[in-house]
Amino acid sequence: MAGVMPRLAAPPFEPGTVWLVGAGPGDPGLLTLHAAHALAEADVVLHDALVSPDILGMAVRARLEPVGKRAGGQRTLQLRINERLIRLAREGRRVVRLKGGDPLVFGRGGEEALALAAAGVRFRIVPGVSAGVGGTAAAGIPVTHRGLARSVAFVTGHDAGGGFPADLDWQALAQGADVLVLYMGLRTIGAIAARLLAAGRPATEPVAFVTNATTPRQRVAVTTLADAETTAATIAPHAPTVIMVGPVVALRELIGPWQDTAPMVVTPAPRRATA
Amino acid sequence: MAGVMPRLAAPPFEPGTVWLVGAGPGDPGLLTLHAAHALAEADVVLHDALVSPDILGMAVRARLEPVGKRAGGQRTLQLRINERLIRLAREGRRVVRLKGGDPLVFGRGGEEALALAAAGVRFRIVPGVSAGVGGTAAAGIPVTHRGLARSVAFVTGHDAGGGFPADLDWQALAQGADVLVLYMGLRTIGAIAARLLAAGRPATEPVAFVTNATTPRQRVAVTTLADAETTAATIAPHAPTVIMVGPVVALRELIGPWQDTAPMVVTPAPRRATA
Repeated sequence: MAGVMPRLAAPPFEPGTVWLVGAGPGDPGLLTLHAAHALAEADVVLHDALVSPDILGMAVRARLEPVGKRAGGQRTLQLRINERLIRLAREGRRVVRLKGGDPLVFGRGGEEALALAAAGVRFRIVPGVSAGVGGTAAAGIPVTHRGLARSVAFVTGHDAGGGFPADLDWQALAQGADVLVLYMGLRTIGAIAARLLAAGRPATEPVAFVTNATTPRQRVAVTTLADAETTAATIAPHAPTVIMVGPVVALRELIGPWQDTAPMVVTPAPRRATA
Repeated sequence: MAGVMPRLAAPPFEPGTVWLVGAGPGDPGLLTLHAAHALAEADVVLHDALVSPDILGMAVRARLEPVGKRAGGQRTLQLRINERLIRLAREGRRVVRLKGGDPLVFGRGGEEALALAAAGVRFRIVPGVSAGVGGTAAAGIPVTHRGLARSVAFVTGHDAGGGFPADLDWQALAQGADVLVLYMGLRTIGAIAARLLAAGRPATEPVAFVTNATTPRQRVAVTTLADAETTAATIAPHAPTVIMVGPVVALRELIGPWQDTAPMVVTPAPRRATA
């Protein structure tokens, strides 16, 4: 890789600013150049629990601060993350807020951006490859396809309390979207599938569960809407899983056997310094 | 950038294979590491007309073959692209098929993958940052946002003939999706807005047109559903433009002034050799 980059000039990562960075679905090779640059330059990285150690290993001079979302009191915790970002920026650090996927696709990056703006802290949003696009691609499933999928809806599978988001218009989503991509829907897929079936989607419609997408631990389970809840029960409940509903899932049989998906490998190196 | 990458081992780009690569919305810094690696190693790059010269400049040893989609006979042309990819692979080249955004988000990468699979040619799909996510982020608009946008639909704005896709269920899309992101909808936004209004979306709902997203020529026009067609008429018809409809567009006023968006700059270098 050493020869790839020398002719690129990256915009400076200024001290006292925050970069909201998408880490992509898992494979370090799916980081953007901006993201790799930000990790290399960062003084502090506040990262979600799901970001892989390989990717964190690219932050060679940063202090790493895990900020899990699992420890209850989610709303309070988000406020604490916002406050921490602002404080670190005011101390003059180069701060990376690192999230799986894309920071604005169910990543709450918008809330953090608003908090930073309100505090007068400059920031950059570094988009990433979302699991709904890149993870499904690694499973051999195109998220759009001429004649099969001209509209695709990305939908959260849980509400603020972690339950089924009953107030979404599932009937309209079922009718309007050729493909549905569900984030964080492993626990609620039974209720979701029931709504989609009630809205007229066929019981035989294929459904894919892509777990730990683009990593060596990637697993893909293909089933039907009728059997989706049963299949979901076979997947570890906290494993990051994107769920895709639509006829395009069937293309996996044709595409999957011919595609290469080996990830980039990060070789550990001595960390340079700590902020 | 030189110090960022040396500890990464990229999977080999084998001769006789094709990588279907997303170039992202425009900023070279939004290429993935896999994409940068593929460009550096490629023998031949078949690229869309819209991919920037800066990004093409990263293919230091490749022969560049533009494959426009504008020259009529779109379906025939896609078949020719498929044939060309297969022939080059069978000649033992390392072939990159480079597309703006993501190859599977209205990029027809799925069709190319199917053609390669049918021909027994191995390939890799390298996802990219789609304009609907990364381009809107650069405009200061989060594609999802708690309380405002829990479902987002990515929809093509034209049918196979380039006209309004009347057979999509616009009423259901209007009811089911908090946010609509329209690709290639500049010429059809009048008809689309009319359907969304008829389905009950408010005339005052904000709409953003993001043109040449993430490049130094980025322009953002914010308007309303009622005025969307009038605004579209002020934009150069062939300028790559993503359109976003939804209350989240209003967040741009708060986020935009505080965000940095400078792209990476590719410094020209002597090309190494030609395949």
